[in-house]
Amino acid sequence: MVVEEIGLVAGAFTTAALLPQVWKAFKTKSTRDVSLEMVIVLGIGVVFWLAYGLMKNDVPIIIANALTLATVIALLYLKIKHG
Amino acid sequence: MVVEEIGLVAGAFTTAALLPQVWKAFKTKSTRDVSLEMVIVLGIGVVFWLAYGLMKNDVPIIIANALTLATVIALLYLKIKHG
Repeated sequence: MVVEEIGLVAGAFTTAALLPQVWKAFKTKSTRDVSLEMVIVLGIGVVFWLAYGLMKNDVPIIIANALTLATVIALLYLKIKHG
Repeated sequence: MVVEEIGLVAGAFTTAALLPQVWKAFKTKSTRDVSLEMVIVLGIGVVFWLAYGLMKNDVPIIIANALTLATVIALLYLKIKHG
């Protein structure tokens, strides 16, 4: 497996990781145990990773963090909605 | 700000993101709304990012993911303990 592929697999997993959390929050309408600070700090971090990926022209980092940003925004919406 | 520093800031945020979640789970002893699948898939992804960082000798990625792996393991322990 080449390095770029390892990065894409890594990005696939860390991006996919938030999906079951978003789905759980959507389904149960309960986010009491989910930390709002986690979602916010993660969002800020992902924006920086995106900038880093763009500056290094590192495709796996760009793709992974663009997608993660979308799921972070979805989770933030659900957390604010359900508290 | 140089590219490497952007990466370190990014890593600081995404690594720090899990800390309030771990703290919340530790303090409330409640992880019902936290997705176990999220924790497991995130853990797998972080191991791949670590491999990617090591193969590219990319210091911000190595440091960030080594630390994140530790917090993921802590959260996994709390999730399994409290359900």
